Amino acid sequence: MDRLHAQALDADDPLARFREAFELPAGVIYLDGNSLGALPRATAPRLDDLILREWGQDLITSWNKAGWIDAPQRAGAKLAQLTGARPREVVVADSTSVNLFKLAAGALSLRPGRKTIITEIGNFHTDVYVLEGLAAIVGATLKILPRDEVVAAIDKTTALVALTHVHYATAERWDMKAVTAAAHAKGALMLWDLSHTAGAIQCDLNGCEADLAVGCGYKHLNGGPGAPAFLFVAERHQKDIRSPLSGWMGHAEPFAFEPRFRPAPDIRAQLCGTPPILGIAALECGLDLLLEADRALAEAKGLALCEAFIAGVESRCAGHGLKLIGPRDVAQRGLHVSFAHPQAYALVQALIARRVVGDFRDPDIARFGFPPLYVSHTDVWDAVEILAEVLETRAWDNPDYRARQLVT
Amino acid sequence: MDRLHAQALDADDPLARFREAFELPAGVIYLDGNSLGALPRATAPRLDDLILREWGQDLITSWNKAGWIDAPQRAGAKLAQLTGARPREVVVADSTSVNLFKLAAGALSLRPGRKTIITEIGNFHTDVYVLEGLAAIVGATLKILPRDEVVAAIDKTTALVALTHVHYATAERWDMKAVTAAAHAKGALMLWDLSHTAGAIQCDLNGCEADLAVGCGYKHLNGGPGAPAFLFVAERHQKDIRSPLSGWMGHAEPFAFEPRFRPAPDIRAQLCGTPPILGIAALECGLDLLLEADRALAEAKGLALCEAFIAGVESRCAGHGLKLIGPRDVAQRGLHVSFAHPQAYALVQALIARRVVGDFRDPDIARFGFPPLYVSHTDVWDAVEILAEVLETRAWDNPDYRARQLVT
Repeated sequence: MDRLHAQALDADDPLARFREAFELPAGVIYLDGNSLGALPRATAPRLDDLILREWGQDLITSWNKAGWIDAPQRAGAKLAQLTGARPREVVVADSTSVNLFKLAAGALSLRPGRKTIITEIGNFHTDVYVLEGLAAIVGATLKILPRDEVVAAIDKTTALVALTHVHYATAERWDMKAVTAAAHAKGALMLWDLSHTAGAIQCDLNGCEADLAVGCGYKHLNGGPGAPAFLFVAERHQKDIRSPLSGWMGHAEPFAFEPRFRPAPDIRAQLCGTPPILGIAALECGLDLLLEADRALAEAKGLALCEAFIAGVESRCAGHGLKLIGPRDVAQRGLHVSFAHPQAYALVQALIARRVVGDFRDPDIARFGFPPLYVSHTDVWDAVEILAEVLETRAWDNPDYRARQLVT
Repeated sequence: MDRLHAQALDADDPLARFREAFELPAGVIYLDGNSLGALPRATAPRLDDLILREWGQDLITSWNKAGWIDAPQRAGAKLAQLTGARPREVVVADSTSVNLFKLAAGALSLRPGRKTIITEIGNFHTDVYVLEGLAAIVGATLKILPRDEVVAAIDKTTALVALTHVHYATAERWDMKAVTAAAHAKGALMLWDLSHTAGAIQCDLNGCEADLAVGCGYKHLNGGPGAPAFLFVAERHQKDIRSPLSGWMGHAEPFAFEPRFRPAPDIRAQLCGTPPILGIAALECGLDLLLEADRALAEAKGLALCEAFIAGVESRCAGHGLKLIGPRDVAQRGLHVSFAHPQAYALVQALIARRVVGDFRDPDIARFGFPPLYVSHTDVWDAVEILAEVLETRAWDNPDYRARQLVT
């Protein structure tokens, strides 16, 4: 493997043309699309049209005429295609945290008498925090267990098992089908956080008989900073699940101004406040682009990039204290790769100064993402070379690179 | 009063220059800014810069460099200026519905042992629905009372009184100071929904010793369709109030990745998921514009427009079945005016066809808003004339105008 080989792979890559569909700064190798996805070229013109024409000129009529009112369902139907769901099983709304709260509370409503929620130690922290908040106000029990004890702990008191399919740090995948079946075997419901899954690797919610799911819009979906999130409720649960966040958009007839809440009989019951139209429009630009690409090809390329990065780092950077986190077998991974290093923070800053953008995660993780539509095989090769140079020259050993910023 | 007089008032209006700061379609008299505020001219260029430079070029570094991470507090400090709050008492986040849920639940956390929430019959329906949802999952009691029974019902079991300061339909104001004092006299907390107040009429949350408030970003704040909302927690409550929506942005150190939730000791504890950066940026354009105008002058002009509209309709349109809803004294009003009419829906459609944009509210209300920065005295005069013509010619009696759309 050398740079020429990487270039040859790129020349043969049927997905290479998608790079041009993104605005990326010249000379930057952007390996942080798992944190903030790159900007699709279509987004700025779409937002201009939305702002200047739909809002500025057509004003309030755009709720009907421009389909604003259906935006959560329209974007949801696109997400359904990426997650193995039916079009009417997904909506775009709120944040991942808020959606998790709604659905976890909803799970308790579907399993009266059961009061335990199970999740994993080391799950993305907002997931744990939100479940803590829910458990505290409803008097449920939250069990936060080591990964290898989760399945065995599911029992007839368990209302819900809530896990993140692809781990934010290690990128390790749960076996969605097996764990869902294990939850169902004990009568529990299964909720998957797809924040690092949707738009990255293939996912078959209905094939796995998943009950509930949530996920983030600003990572692999390229929806922009703080993009609205999504949620999935399997059709069989939609009539009975109850969101405690019963805002007007979840009402069967939001504009009938009925005095009491009457939930929509379908996925709309999981909506709450007025939909964030600018945010959903930007997210749809990201979704439309993803849906143009063959999803199997995209996953295969992304995993190949991860594999090349792991192999490159382990051969070119050996002896500098980097330690791969998570499985070596890329079939058990999502599309990011983390290495532990005692100076991970400074190392990531030194790379950013050299225009290789990854990110740091507490306590000692340097993380790199490989979205296949805008990262090339040559990018991976070059990133490894630059990382090797930073390590060999101890370029990370610089006080400027140790000064922590607010967002790491 | 005639059109020349209205034109003279406009010529003398120190706020008239603000009309140019908004993009409005030519020939339209837009009297629905209380539902969707008009587009500030600054918004589209700001969003372009945010999207193309901050997101597209600077990518993940913008969380620090462009101040994305502080956007909720920065926009909140601007809102504080419009609502009589301190800069660190307000944040922009989520939707009004979600914020109401957080703060009403928080009120219960501040008043352990008290289990009753009081609100008003006819309060904007999402407020009632959200309080219903909260009461159901925490086992609280929601009392929904006629307006004139609310104050008398407050007693030592009351944890929270939650009211909308300016009524969405009648525009009637509650006496914020007196009702807050009545709640406090019984040891209850007071939450104000400022959706039709902030940016419209002056408001002194701290002067009234209010405890909690929420409000909408897309009406008088001109933040765009589905703009993020805001919330206020008086400084004295910030350390102890507990939001059940304990997402990572509410953590004392969101990027420390601590295993358990530890709330921020200040207003940030009311944040939940990742902030919606596009939406907050658009809202800030609206806020910046409002803050350029003298707030006392703006309120006085808005109320003068309301008064002129009421007087005009009652003199020019008498005998056609229009009935003013809410107080005639504009000092007791917000900046919109509603008339009941048996054919209100068709009437509003007929007006829209004639480029006078108001809105309809179930069951029989035609509603018109008068944001003083882009509605002129001449607009009011012309709107009354066109309304009179529609009534005199029975132009509303047209099947096209009776066909209900999804959003009314």
